[in-house]
Amino acid sequence: MSGAANQKISDFPYRITVPTRWGDNDMLGHVNNVAYYRFFEAIVVRFQMEEVGVDWLKDKISPQAVETLCRFHRPLSFPETIEVGLRVERIGNSSVTFEIALFGEGGDAPAASGHFVHVLVDAETLKSQPIADDQRKIFEKFS
Amino acid sequence: MSGAANQKISDFPYRITVPTRWGDNDMLGHVNNVAYYRFFEAIVVRFQMEEVGVDWLKDKISPQAVETLCRFHRPLSFPETIEVGLRVERIGNSSVTFEIALFGEGGDAPAASGHFVHVLVDAETLKSQPIADDQRKIFEKFS
Amino acid sequence: MSGAANQKISDFPYRITVPTRWGDNDMLGHVNNVAYYRFFEAIVVRFQMEEVGVDWLKDKISPQAVETLCRFHRPLSFPETIEVGLRVERIGNSSVTFEIALFGEGGDAPAASGHFVHVLVDAETLKSQPIADDQRKIFEKFS
Amino acid sequence: MSGAANQKISDFPYRITVPTRWGDNDMLGHVNNVAYYRFFEAIVVRFQMEEVGVDWLKDKISPQAVETLCRFHRPLSFPETIEVGLRVERIGNSSVTFEIALFGEGGDAPAASGHFVHVLVDAETLKSQPIADDQRKIFEKFS
Repeated sequence: MSGAANQKISDFPYRITVPTRWGDNDMLGHVNNVAYYRFFEAIVVRFQMEEVGVDWLKDKISPQAVETLCRFHRPLSFPETIEVGLRVERIGNSSVTFEIALFGEGGDAPAASGHFVHVLVDAETLKSQPIADDQRKIFEKFS
Repeated sequence: MSGAANQKISDFPYRITVPTRWGDNDMLGHVNNVAYYRFFEAIVVRFQMEEVGVDWLKDKISPQAVETLCRFHRPLSFPETIEVGLRVERIGNSSVTFEIALFGEGGDAPAASGHFVHVLVDAETLKSQPIADDQRKIFEKFS
Repeated sequence: MSGAANQKISDFPYRITVPTRWGDNDMLGHVNNVAYYRFFEAIVVRFQMEEVGVDWLKDKISPQAVETLCRFHRPLSFPETIEVGLRVERIGNSSVTFEIALFGEGGDAPAASGHFVHVLVDAETLKSQPIADDQRKIFEKFS
Repeated sequence: MSGAANQKISDFPYRITVPTRWGDNDMLGHVNNVAYYRFFEAIVVRFQMEEVGVDWLKDKISPQAVETLCRFHRPLSFPETIEVGLRVERIGNSSVTFEIALFGEGGDAPAASGHFVHVLVDAETLKSQPIADDQRKIFEKFS
């Protein structure tokens, strides 16, 4: 993620927009640090549901977060609409790492960047599971 | 609820304390209006779980919110700890109405007051169910 | 608000759409009762900012919530997009009552309906202030 | 942070307890990944306010988050009460890194661990500022 500060939204193959809510701002008048992870979650969940076909309520094997990280470069503030970009950064045996960046209005550089690591877990045995080939191909398409 | 502004925490037979969180405040520097309902929910859920024995994840018949109301009398602010009081205001055939008040630190009068109406619902048929006698007695104890 | 269950989104002169977030759902798999008030807040804040010109961070006299109410008719669930409708229900001397309804996807009837009462308050004296004529006219346009 | 999985709450010189809220759980029945950062924030904010004397609303120079990270080892669930431990991991010229771990009920090992990096920033110039000696001494006491 070196050079994260130079990235543009167009560098990310998967993108969504998320309107901020009044309550995302904290008493300092900016989007609260915790809320950034709501935006991370929004794009990862959407990607897994729509591109990979994950259904967390039904699937016996489903992705679980094992690590998230965010670097805060500059403030975002309600009522801005956030552009969120995702790129598959690394595909492991049973894990996938998504690189994510948040962009505010009127700026090329990301306001925040980070990653979100999912591991495939069997809900019964709680053991990690290998990523199937068809899923791997989807991840590769967005890497 | 006339005279709500004159109530004290000791007027309520069921009470909990809830520490505020940084993120409960909004950009105006006070607890956000929406977060008051988090405190309402905290006491209603705790009461139903601990006094009535409700288990929302297992019970086939469980209480569902049909109406909530809050009147905001004066601001609350992080890092205050909130005292929350609950009283059973009305027991219907299948519904129970909880009167709730929130008290900040260093003040006798409630910062907010309102109610929360639960209806017993069968998860399969989605029809309302009569309150059983043993539950009714619990509600009466707190009325 | 009699007949709220028969209302359609087209009955409301001011409307927005709000995408749900994963975290809006609670462990019962539906949008949590508290989150409904986030949608109420979203439309009231947007209306006051865009139609009335309120700036809560700068204005000396600004609207403060004194009462909110919500009736829950049927569940909403992530990833639904919510349509929110607002109508000015009552204009008092210093207060305005907004009637609000939430509509899920694929249904004419509201999933929830309620109101949000704002009172104009002077930030210094904390006293309520009369609604100016130009604001009153805006409210009348949406009543 | 090697060996994080072996840490106990007693390894951390600063500790608080945080009751979970119903809404911290998501539809999978566990505390949502995002909410872990609420617990991180709770202890960092409390530490900075009570031990260091930070007042974010008044101070011209105040700590701002530049990076947070969380590793999720095992689930937490409402209605558990969380024990949160904090240790000063690294003191830089203008930054301080807090190591944080979350512990659920009835378990020695942390449910999650991570860090939170604060940088001292001048609100006007937006430039980072060196940590004063008296603050540095406080940080050293908790390292």
